[in-house]
Amino acid sequence: MTFIPPPDQEHHSPLLIKQLLIRSSLVSTKQEIISGSDTRLTYAEFNARIGRLANTLSSAGICEGKRVGVMDWDTHRYLECFFAIPMMGAVLHTINVRLSPKQILYTINHGQPDLIIVHQEFMPLIDEIQSGFERDITIIPIGDGVGYEDWVSGATANYDFPDFDENQPATLFYTTGTTGKPKGVSYSHRQLLLHTLGVVAGFGAYPGNSGFHRGDVYMPLTPLFHVHGWGFPYAATMLGLRQVYPGRYSPDLILKLIASEGVTFSHCVPTILSMVLDHPDCTQVDLSQWKVIIGGSALPRSLQDRAEAMGISLHAAYGMSETCPFLTVADLSSSDPEIRAQTGFPGPLVDLRVVTPDMRDVPHDAATTGEVVVRAPWLAQGYFGNLEASDALWSGGYLHTGDVGYIRENGSLQITDRLKDVIKTGGEWISSLELENIASTCIGIKEVAAIGRPDTKWGERPVLVAQLAEDSDPDLVRKNVLEEIQSHVDSGALSKWAVPDTIIFVNQLPKTSVGKLDKKAMRQDILSRLNTNT
Amino acid sequence: MTFIPPPDQEHHSPLLIKQLLIRSSLVSTKQEIISGSDTRLTYAEFNARIGRLANTLSSAGICEGKRVGVMDWDTHRYLECFFAIPMMGAVLHTINVRLSPKQILYTINHGQPDLIIVHQEFMPLIDEIQSGFERDITIIPIGDGVGYEDWVSGATANYDFPDFDENQPATLFYTTGTTGKPKGVSYSHRQLLLHTLGVVAGFGAYPGNSGFHRGDVYMPLTPLFHVHGWGFPYAATMLGLRQVYPGRYSPDLILKLIASEGVTFSHCVPTILSMVLDHPDCTQVDLSQWKVIIGGSALPRSLQDRAEAMGISLHAAYGMSETCPFLTVADLSSSDPEIRAQTGFPGPLVDLRVVTPDMRDVPHDAATTGEVVVRAPWLAQGYFGNLEASDALWSGGYLHTGDVGYIRENGSLQITDRLKDVIKTGGEWISSLELENIASTCIGIKEVAAIGRPDTKWGERPVLVAQLAEDSDPDLVRKNVLEEIQSHVDSGALSKWAVPDTIIFVNQLPKTSVGKLDKKAMRQDILSRLNTNT
Repeated sequence: MTFIPPPDQEHHSPLLIKQLLIRSSLVSTKQEIISGSDTRLTYAEFNARIGRLANTLSSAGICEGKRVGVMDWDTHRYLECFFAIPMMGAVLHTINVRLSPKQILYTINHGQPDLIIVHQEFMPLIDEIQSGFERDITIIPIGDGVGYEDWVSGATANYDFPDFDENQPATLFYTTGTTGKPKGVSYSHRQLLLHTLGVVAGFGAYPGNSGFHRGDVYMPLTPLFHVHGWGFPYAATMLGLRQVYPGRYSPDLILKLIASEGVTFSHCVPTILSMVLDHPDCTQVDLSQWKVIIGGSALPRSLQDRAEAMGISLHAAYGMSETCPFLTVADLSSSDPEIRAQTGFPGPLVDLRVVTPDMRDVPHDAATTGEVVVRAPWLAQGYFGNLEASDALWSGGYLHTGDVGYIRENGSLQITDRLKDVIKTGGEWISSLELENIASTCIGIKEVAAIGRPDTKWGERPVLVAQLAEDSDPDLVRKNVLEEIQSHVDSGALSKWAVPDTIIFVNQLPKTSVGKLDKKAMRQDILSRLNTNT
Repeated sequence: MTFIPPPDQEHHSPLLIKQLLIRSSLVSTKQEIISGSDTRLTYAEFNARIGRLANTLSSAGICEGKRVGVMDWDTHRYLECFFAIPMMGAVLHTINVRLSPKQILYTINHGQPDLIIVHQEFMPLIDEIQSGFERDITIIPIGDGVGYEDWVSGATANYDFPDFDENQPATLFYTTGTTGKPKGVSYSHRQLLLHTLGVVAGFGAYPGNSGFHRGDVYMPLTPLFHVHGWGFPYAATMLGLRQVYPGRYSPDLILKLIASEGVTFSHCVPTILSMVLDHPDCTQVDLSQWKVIIGGSALPRSLQDRAEAMGISLHAAYGMSETCPFLTVADLSSSDPEIRAQTGFPGPLVDLRVVTPDMRDVPHDAATTGEVVVRAPWLAQGYFGNLEASDALWSGGYLHTGDVGYIRENGSLQITDRLKDVIKTGGEWISSLELENIASTCIGIKEVAAIGRPDTKWGERPVLVAQLAEDSDPDLVRKNVLEEIQSHVDSGALSKWAVPDTIIFVNQLPKTSVGKLDKKAMRQDILSRLNTNT
């Protein structure tokens, strides 16, 4: 007898997004999904609506292999699209509405959707770019309380979602790098399933209430078109959590929903948290039960202090568009602000290394930096239709994050910089993040970025670009910041090359479409201005 | 341009057991694994030992596709085998040492191992059956502190564990049904990886400390040869938990380890918990931080009451050899004894149905029973080399558990019986579990089973088989039990057909090798005796 178990793969269960609904459709039928200030669904209704949307799309000609674009705020409708579209075997193209009209047109022509569901607020944009569409695309205009409901209401709730190959693509979106055109990133059903399990295992299983758990009330504050809202909507639905979708982000509605629905778990970039904390209603709302995962950019210490003073439990996490996105998360059970702000520990199955340019591991000494490279079962296999960029991404068999960091002896990662944002002066690497962190705590600084200015002698020299707080005296602030940085040099924490040559004050720091500091723009615009002025 | 993302599968990560070690080998290097009263390893040492074992096995001729049997108690050595053997591409055959010598010989000849690692306590057994081996098998005798260490100590710790197809078999073991020969069940790397993620997602992510979390200290009390210790050793290692392996189960060492190592999480069948609670040292140990998952058999209410009186947090879970095993778990955050004892909620990705013989779903009304059938990405594809039994197992595209139960409106499953143990009387189904539960709470009853006795008029009639508590009067106990059951009939909770015709007292209830009530033996032996006597 030959030893070939299993005897067959006849009963092999492919990993498909529909499986994420199995548990909540049995167990959480009465649990609620809240959307904006008006909509309240049970999971039973949510499941029925997914079937109805699939039948409606089917009538509109959508079937396996077709693509459906969505341009909407964070609503229950978008969550329904997260499931119905891939479960039909079609591909969900989450269109980034914050890109420029030209970039949006580019992503639509590159992604080739057959149909786009468009919130009425984006219809003027569609009118503007529609003449540039390179194929026939059905546009379905929807809105809050109108359009979408009429569109799906006629359809039956029963839809027999088929089994198919788990490697079939489920989602597609475009990421804007610092150079070149937006690049398409696609994830398969298998990758999204494994990522969801990875998120639950990586953010759950913590003692106390510190992790992401069945008692949480979840509200995304990362747009659903950003790497599937960082994957948490899938995880929350699998666990059958009470979920709250805030629509278009407005701090007063966000605060109202936190209070009225008892939101306990969110995730966002620092800018959004800032926006919420800046709102006058903020002091009226009890935020002491609110856990917030910060990603997308480093967590500025000043924002962390402010949030923690209000009782918010803040932790950093790390990932990127190409990584689905979960890679690491700070120790969620720690109340130490230093530890909470760490880039953190790799999630389950995440093979994370910090390496030299020739791919050798750096020592885990909390000091030696290198590039962060990763393997995991949910990483993008490359960029859609861009083999050259795909090969660069996966050079040496690991996905290259482009981020620079070190690993502590306990295995915790610290990102110190973007590879392209490191300031190289006199043969030393200066961390722009470290300079920004020190400067951000100085009185009079509202927001600050450190960039490298080309220098014939030193290669580069650090320069700070900052927005002043209201009623601050630029000369005084400049003096304070430079003294503060000098004190870090004096204590030995910073290299003496790290003291910036100058601080430039601007009205507003340039940002990318996802709210990150746009250092490319700063280097171009501000440095050219600086060169002119000096 | 054709739309075929992902552009290639070149960077596809297969789901392999070695990935479970990635996180703890980076993060938990100083965390401890304790084995018995003498051995204490860090994860760094544990990882090195896995490499050493693989090199040792390699020198002994083991390579991809070979099979390695293990006969050992629950030790760090066994845990090392859990990883090293499948990670080499070989198959780990976990030999059930509690079977009869004839059955063990059968499973060895059927499973075809090339090498067996044997604890010295089982060497007499090997000597007894060795002449029946149908192939050359290398026997490696080991022991506590001897043998194994000498065997592996010469090897280097570096072993380059290869990538291979995730569907390759990783483990093999034999399950003893109620009829016929032991049947081989095999799991692939993919299945074990997904099961591990399912266990962490299903037993973790609970509020408070009620779930399985990073702060737990884990000790298995289900032998590692029983469905991989229910999969928890893999889950604990992935999370990098402090782990405690108790060797051969002895209540005093178990209690000592709970106290000295601060054990907080275990799992076992009711018999083992009973054994621990019966030990005189039990009252000297603080068990109030101990969470215990009970599976394998229904949780008797009397045992639950006893355990909870000692502060133990007890919850039921459900699965079987053919399901890897995790299927359901009671609500871990509940402190209500009724809810804690429920068969519970399906784990993530578990598609669980209760169906009529023609596979239609029964209503979820907490009353209508049917057979429990399941699909999940970690179920056995069939029995190794037994197509007929495999086809029966998967009849209708779902795995048939052979268990009877109902589903509550909130989605919680309740197993009421084994399909073959249901007592059918006068066209009514009587739950033997329900009768056992009532009888077990009566004073004077130590252990009790309900079985059906063939009856020409009624089809079957219920009979209780019981072991008396010490110094109990059989006539008085019989009278009390029947009155107690009658009171449940009077209150409408039980059908009037459910009152047993008689109660037979025996010195010891027959058990299967895994400690379950052996109703097949009871029906054969006791009923024949009953028929002779009456």
